[in-house]
Amino acid sequence: VIKAILFDIDDTLFPSGEFAEKARRNAIAAMVEEGLNRDVEAAYRALEKIIRKYGSNYPRHFDVLLDNLGVKENRARLIAAGVAAYHNTKSTIAPFPDVPKTLVRLRDAGYRLYAVSEGKAVKQWDKLIRLGLDFFFHGAFISEELGCRKGVRFYRIIARRLKLKPSEMVMVGDRLDKDIIPAKRAGARAIRILQGRHALKRAGRVRPDSEVRRMAEVIDAIKKLG
Amino acid sequence: VIKAILFDIDDTLFPSGEFAEKARRNAIAAMVEEGLNRDVEAAYRALEKIIRKYGSNYPRHFDVLLDNLGVKENRARLIAAGVAAYHNTKSTIAPFPDVPKTLVRLRDAGYRLYAVSEGKAVKQWDKLIRLGLDFFFHGAFISEELGCRKGVRFYRIIARRLKLKPSEMVMVGDRLDKDIIPAKRAGARAIRILQGRHALKRAGRVRPDSEVRRMAEVIDAIKKLG
Repeated sequence: VIKAILFDIDDTLFPSGEFAEKARRNAIAAMVEEGLNRDVEAAYRALEKIIRKYGSNYPRHFDVLLDNLGVKENRARLIAAGVAAYHNTKSTIAPFPDVPKTLVRLRDAGYRLYAVSEGKAVKQWDKLIRLGLDFFFHGAFISEELGCRKGVRFYRIIARRLKLKPSEMVMVGDRLDKDIIPAKRAGARAIRILQGRHALKRAGRVRPDSEVRRMAEVIDAIKKLG
Repeated sequence: VIKAILFDIDDTLFPSGEFAEKARRNAIAAMVEEGLNRDVEAAYRALEKIIRKYGSNYPRHFDVLLDNLGVKENRARLIAAGVAAYHNTKSTIAPFPDVPKTLVRLRDAGYRLYAVSEGKAVKQWDKLIRLGLDFFFHGAFISEELGCRKGVRFYRIIARRLKLKPSEMVMVGDRLDKDIIPAKRAGARAIRILQGRHALKRAGRVRPDSEVRRMAEVIDAIKKLG
């Protein structure tokens, strides 16, 4: 019997990839507006490359961008413009439309709901709060606080903390490598949600218990798990 | 003859002190909402004290706040709530209502306009951009980039960069210690604007050339300087 449902955050609760792209595009547009004299598309691709290389938690993406573009003048102004536009866009994140309704129904049905995510704890809570989803969950498990990334151990620790058998938990997420496979290997159930850039990846040997196209379908999928 | 007008940013172009207080109050309110079980007023005063002690550029005010309040649980969630509310409020800054109009008139009258400020260059440009004032100025001089704080040397460097005699510049600001006195000592003219928490300070030996109550009055004050 399923007692707890774990939800990945990015591209499961909200279109993270889309917002990230919009934020980067708005940042470049603002920098050009503020005097950056470079091709928009080239600058955008350079920024993408920097974010891939340094990771999304690196605090100086825009400094490196100006280094890579060979910009020596007016740097503070351009960086301020990029950062402001980036954060303004990021602060407009909203959940997939069926998420709040689905979470409320699952709560009403007696399940305990947890957000689980890899990354910095404050940053992940910032997302939940800005999404307006913080009060739908009974709690959150973030890799930084658990001391390990989203692997088999991550899901085992969560089961232990919740005093549940792994088989009493179901993980809902978009990624095979971080959500589905390690959850299944830890003995939990797993529902794959086909959203975002990972939707096209083909499952290998370890498969989810079911696949859904949107959050609202999770309710039926969980019923079928028994 | 006056050729360039320098404007302080905080409490000259916008009510900085008011926004800072509102941002701190909203941060505490959001943290209480998110589960911080402490007296609102006590938490607010603790946060004020931390900002005074560590300065406004310190990146971990809310961590220290939770330390000082003895909060051990739920920290990432509370910090995220505080930081988000703080930045949301800060991103709503707007200029004093007569500022854009006055700047445009002074530009039309042929003066060159510069924002001058003590602090981090990116942070000060972020303010100008969020205030929508970035394109009113011919440029900005920020202490971080000039390599010295707002003292006599700061104003001398600006005159040199602008290829002006100090007497061809007028500094407009709210602070005697950073705007009026060092500008006068450097040989520039100075107009004191009586806004914000420094409005009540009594001028000593070095006095501004004139005092105004709001930005719109700067136009006449400059005419009188000749």
